[in-house]
Amino acid sequence: MTPPGADDALLLAPLAEVAERLRTRRLSPVELTAAVLARIERLDPALRAFVTVTPERALAAAREAESAIASGRWRGPLHGVPVSLKDLFDVRGVRTSAGSRFLAEHVAQDDSAVAARLEAAGAVLVGKANLHEFAYGTTCDSTIAGAIRNPWKRDAIPGGSSGGSGAAVAAGLGFASIGTDTGGSVRIPAACCGVVGLKPTFGRISRHGLVPLAPSLDHVGPLTRTVHDAALVFAALAGHDPRDPDSLAAPVPDLAQAAGRGVRGLRLGILDTTLESASSEVAAAVGVAAERLRGAGAELRRVSLATLESVRHAAFVMLFAESLATHRARFESEPERFFPDVRARFERALPLSAVDYVAALEARRAGAAEALRALAEVDALVTPTLPTGAAPCGATQVAVDERAVDVAVANTLYTREWNVLGFPALSVPCGFTGDGLPIGMQLVARPCDEATLVRAGAEYQRLTDWHARAPAL
Amino acid sequence: MTPPGADDALLLAPLAEVAERLRTRRLSPVELTAAVLARIERLDPALRAFVTVTPERALAAAREAESAIASGRWRGPLHGVPVSLKDLFDVRGVRTSAGSRFLAEHVAQDDSAVAARLEAAGAVLVGKANLHEFAYGTTCDSTIAGAIRNPWKRDAIPGGSSGGSGAAVAAGLGFASIGTDTGGSVRIPAACCGVVGLKPTFGRISRHGLVPLAPSLDHVGPLTRTVHDAALVFAALAGHDPRDPDSLAAPVPDLAQAAGRGVRGLRLGILDTTLESASSEVAAAVGVAAERLRGAGAELRRVSLATLESVRHAAFVMLFAESLATHRARFESEPERFFPDVRARFERALPLSAVDYVAALEARRAGAAEALRALAEVDALVTPTLPTGAAPCGATQVAVDERAVDVAVANTLYTREWNVLGFPALSVPCGFTGDGLPIGMQLVARPCDEATLVRAGAEYQRLTDWHARAPAL
Repeated sequence: MTPPGADDALLLAPLAEVAERLRTRRLSPVELTAAVLARIERLDPALRAFVTVTPERALAAAREAESAIASGRWRGPLHGVPVSLKDLFDVRGVRTSAGSRFLAEHVAQDDSAVAARLEAAGAVLVGKANLHEFAYGTTCDSTIAGAIRNPWKRDAIPGGSSGGSGAAVAAGLGFASIGTDTGGSVRIPAACCGVVGLKPTFGRISRHGLVPLAPSLDHVGPLTRTVHDAALVFAALAGHDPRDPDSLAAPVPDLAQAAGRGVRGLRLGILDTTLESASSEVAAAVGVAAERLRGAGAELRRVSLATLESVRHAAFVMLFAESLATHRARFESEPERFFPDVRARFERALPLSAVDYVAALEARRAGAAEALRALAEVDALVTPTLPTGAAPCGATQVAVDERAVDVAVANTLYTREWNVLGFPALSVPCGFTGDGLPIGMQLVARPCDEATLVRAGAEYQRLTDWHARAPAL
Repeated sequence: MTPPGADDALLLAPLAEVAERLRTRRLSPVELTAAVLARIERLDPALRAFVTVTPERALAAAREAESAIASGRWRGPLHGVPVSLKDLFDVRGVRTSAGSRFLAEHVAQDDSAVAARLEAAGAVLVGKANLHEFAYGTTCDSTIAGAIRNPWKRDAIPGGSSGGSGAAVAAGLGFASIGTDTGGSVRIPAACCGVVGLKPTFGRISRHGLVPLAPSLDHVGPLTRTVHDAALVFAALAGHDPRDPDSLAAPVPDLAQAAGRGVRGLRLGILDTTLESASSEVAAAVGVAAERLRGAGAELRRVSLATLESVRHAAFVMLFAESLATHRARFESEPERFFPDVRARFERALPLSAVDYVAALEARRAGAAEALRALAEVDALVTPTLPTGAAPCGATQVAVDERAVDVAVANTLYTREWNVLGFPALSVPCGFTGDGLPIGMQLVARPCDEATLVRAGAEYQRLTDWHARAPAL
């Protein structure tokens, strides 16, 4: 099936590498796209990373890219590169299901901002990635397209809600996938699937044309195999959009340049409570990873945040209230049409009062002030992305050493606070558990300072090869 | 009692006029302050505009101003000018009662930002103005310092919650008073008492050291006799303060300069629904006032805002929820210590859900978008400040022509929406009712564009003399 020049190793290579081959015409976008589509056909029935595959559309875009590049009109590093979009972003003429029975037949009338920017960059959309229903869960077993599997271990979850995006990138089914992150939904599947996930600053990438979950918390971000690749995708997507009321007007940093700057003099603060609450193997892996960065010239400190628990509580209040506000009409008319766990999350909003919501806003404000003070002393925080490797499929609890923790709690234990605060955060692979599941390290920076994340993450990947390993499929 | 050079006419003159006399040493700050204190002593037992009068402090500040000016260190137009502060702003060593039994003995440890800026400008604080308890009401009969009376008619309310500020400025008990405005609390007493009230853009004047009510809606603004005076006070108070988390970083416009620019070419949009719902005499007075501005070169249009009702509903939801969140501990432990109407307002928050609050935020967003579109077509909106003259003391309803309307509803009928949207608004005297009560015209501009309000308001005052009339006392 695989056309010449597009073998498995190439399909698992970094985006930057295939981009260079495409630019120099050592690789044909059409052949590359055909190879990715063939690999999806072969592997996706077991993985279920996609809700919808768009082969005709993809091949047409690839042919267009091929002739444009041939005639000297190369648009940049995404030109001719197969990618996917979480099935929450509208693409004109394609179904946007959100993984939900409510939208199973819903065909988008217009392009989302992200779809339009990808198209403008010349990217080739191979399909819409599977996800937890309405992005409201992290296990990805509640979706009309079937429970997504972890490419590293079929009986483990891929993480979520952008689980199809994580699984697709890890399995070589496209070189990047755009996800969304409301409580960790880009970073969690990145960690579970052993890829990179970047949640930029709140407002950095437009949400126009996206099915919303909780507007104060919803972020858009790429999943890729390398930090440098995430920087390339970010460059294509970031920027002001007046159609998203929370869109940032701030200038967009040059992350590709930041990727080459090294970490000499960078002050990294290990968030102490997170290492203490993670499993010993995860804490050890992240500790070793931080030491690698120290060896490359970074300075390590320990940081405490006293407001973290109240910020996390605020994040739950805001998530519950806003997601029910978003889906109120559906919840009131046909609650049984939601997957049961998603419906149960909506029900958690019912006892919350307006005063609770106001108190959450106040807790967010206090937490942001403390986090900004901490990030005046260090340039980035270091935490695990998750306290363990990916949970087993179907499990309601996961073992953190001797303790049993609810999967839903464990999955967002270190991620949720950075949604409510809006600070940028990155998950980078930093090892494997004894069960052979990937471990992720999370880096968090000041608002608008994605550059520091990329600086540290890219340097870490220069020093290690976790990201170069691929699951046996 | 009155010292030479400080007769009644002078005490009722615009701030700008006494400032010029003080600067040129034709007037002594000490004599002026003594005259204001004597007038307070004479008139305030009936008006109850003050919770606390600070004569020693005022005379000391006046002496300091006198010697500074005498030695050539004139600090600007507030130097040596007697003013008051709503009793919601902390002044070190002085009681901040908020009109409440809860704070009856509360002495401030530090200066509020506003107190510090007034002091830096050389202003002479004569006292703390009476108000509706915790600024949570517009009738000013719920206060530990006794129901405030309208200087124009003793059996009418002064409006509120900054009713003491309005009464003081109208009665010649100081040349300016700084109020707060959460749903109209600067503009309503300005209209009821026949003075000028400016609610600047949200975040323009720091709220540090202020007893909060509803942080998303709380604004600080001056009450003065003329628009030009409001511009002078604004210049002393406006500017960024990192201690107020909502403080604006935007540059502060030069309003004193704007006051001289006239209205030629200014596009004014009469907000049609407000003229329709006001009493016929108020609608007529505001219509005539708008025509005066047209005669001076402005262009008049009619404007409709379809989202206004939903924005007003959002304002109530946010006010109820945030004010209960602010006073939650008091409400839970000693609800009966609040005045009954204030307690009843807190109770209105109890049935509101977190989803209701989120829906209010969404309505605000939609309303802001529509108002911004409308204010792209015109430079300012024109409305009455209130649908009638000041309500009778003790009345629960007020007659709007043949209709009976709840006083609490009528008082904020045109003001509340500009708190939830944060747009700047100004109330200017524009006539009298058949009962001899002042009528106010409200002007509303784009965020950060206080200059347009001052331009139109100052030109209107050049053409009319409503603001030069004083109540018989």
